[in-house]
Amino acid sequence: MLLQKHRKTMNTHSPILMQRREFLFATISAAFASASGMPQCLCGADKPAPSSPMNPRLHTFIGGSAGPWAVTLCKAVTGGPLPAIQRLDIRNAAVPVLPEGAQWMLRGVTSNERYATREEKTQLVANQTGLGRPEATHAALIPIRKNATWWALTQDERRAIFEDRSRHTATGLKYLPAIARRLHHCRDLGESEPFDFLTLFDYRPADANAFEDLVSALRGTEEWKFVEREVDIRLVRDGQ
Amino acid sequence: MLLQKHRKTMNTHSPILMQRREFLFATISAAFASASGMPQCLCGADKPAPSSPMNPRLHTFIGGSAGPWAVTLCKAVTGGPLPAIQRLDIRNAAVPVLPEGAQWMLRGVTSNERYATREEKTQLVANQTGLGRPEATHAALIPIRKNATWWALTQDERRAIFEDRSRHTATGLKYLPAIARRLHHCRDLGESEPFDFLTLFDYRPADANAFEDLVSALRGTEEWKFVEREVDIRLVRDGQ
Repeated sequence: MLLQKHRKTMNTHSPILMQRREFLFATISAAFASASGMPQCLCGADKPAPSSPMNPRLHTFIGGSAGPWAVTLCKAVTGGPLPAIQRLDIRNAAVPVLPEGAQWMLRGVTSNERYATREEKTQLVANQTGLGRPEATHAALIPIRKNATWWALTQDERRAIFEDRSRHTATGLKYLPAIARRLHHCRDLGESEPFDFLTLFDYRPADANAFEDLVSALRGTEEWKFVEREVDIRLVRDGQ
Repeated sequence: MLLQKHRKTMNTHSPILMQRREFLFATISAAFASASGMPQCLCGADKPAPSSPMNPRLHTFIGGSAGPWAVTLCKAVTGGPLPAIQRLDIRNAAVPVLPEGAQWMLRGVTSNERYATREEKTQLVANQTGLGRPEATHAALIPIRKNATWWALTQDERRAIFEDRSRHTATGLKYLPAIARRLHHCRDLGESEPFDFLTLFDYRPADANAFEDLVSALRGTEEWKFVEREVDIRLVRDGQ
């Protein structure tokens, strides 16, 4: 069995790495079993790894000197900053190693919405567009972290602040379809993460003022009193 | 710098493992920075790893031949089974390697509640006890996965099914403080997971019938029509 072979041949180099690799195989095995309808478990596999055992909803943001987005601003709004970067790369994948020249990586998963009602969702779906329109050459990545008080609130209390009093969804709706967005959740990843949410927006240069208005409106809400860390990263696509 | 040293000394053995180790260091670095109030990033560290870079809300369930819990039943209720095991170990930590003799591992994080109102939460807190009472020598681990239809519902629709029509919280309340429980979320972990939730219960032998009633009541609800996979693992602590 492969696990046993690794144990024999690699132990002297690095037990930690071998362990990690076994865990990776285990996860791969589970993903395989899931896809095939076989009994699933995080158990050892005797086959080579398929290309990706990761959650397909996982996105990695790599700040550094590479990637299609040039950074025009990387500013702490609340709490500690992120190290300055020249460019941002965005991958719909796990990135196991910090690439050469990169300063940092942030990760998050898209997930089910936590507050929207069916009525709100219907309006959102009817009006929104996906990221990546060719004309949307401006973008922003805004990582935020909410404080412990927020997370101790119950669902009805959070919903009341988020929408009834802060109009988060209603405000976003006003800027559709001009401002497209994708929300990534970080809080419940297995490893400790510096932010709870990463929101990526893109828009046309002509809508840059509208985007400022949107961000400014949200920052003035009761919901934002619970934001203990926020970084504002503005981006422009090459040649724009 | 440590990363550079690893690059030089380990590249020939396994680039994949080295990469994973670098990512581990990067995550550790971020956790360190977070604790110290320094600017945070997933960047390379030049210090040895502290004991745990993992989310402290992460729990690992190890099925195999070790651990304090003897398995009396491991049965698929809906969907595929898990491989049979003799014992279950539960650790409030990441477990990077499948231990010797283990058949599988499952992981989940405790998180904020997604449906409870303040009124419900107040009742829960007033009545519930934590896991681990000495007299609670019986336990159950019930991993479930909900289908895509469930996850496509909006928050108000899920809440209506979960509580208004299925009485999930109200039913659990009826069995407090006899049946203690802890819910672990798996769906938004970075890696693909075979289940969405792992619920761990413990109770006294005298409350075993009450536990059957609770499980049976939940399985009869509208909410459970969205459960596409469920395994029921029953446990008894040694010497009981």
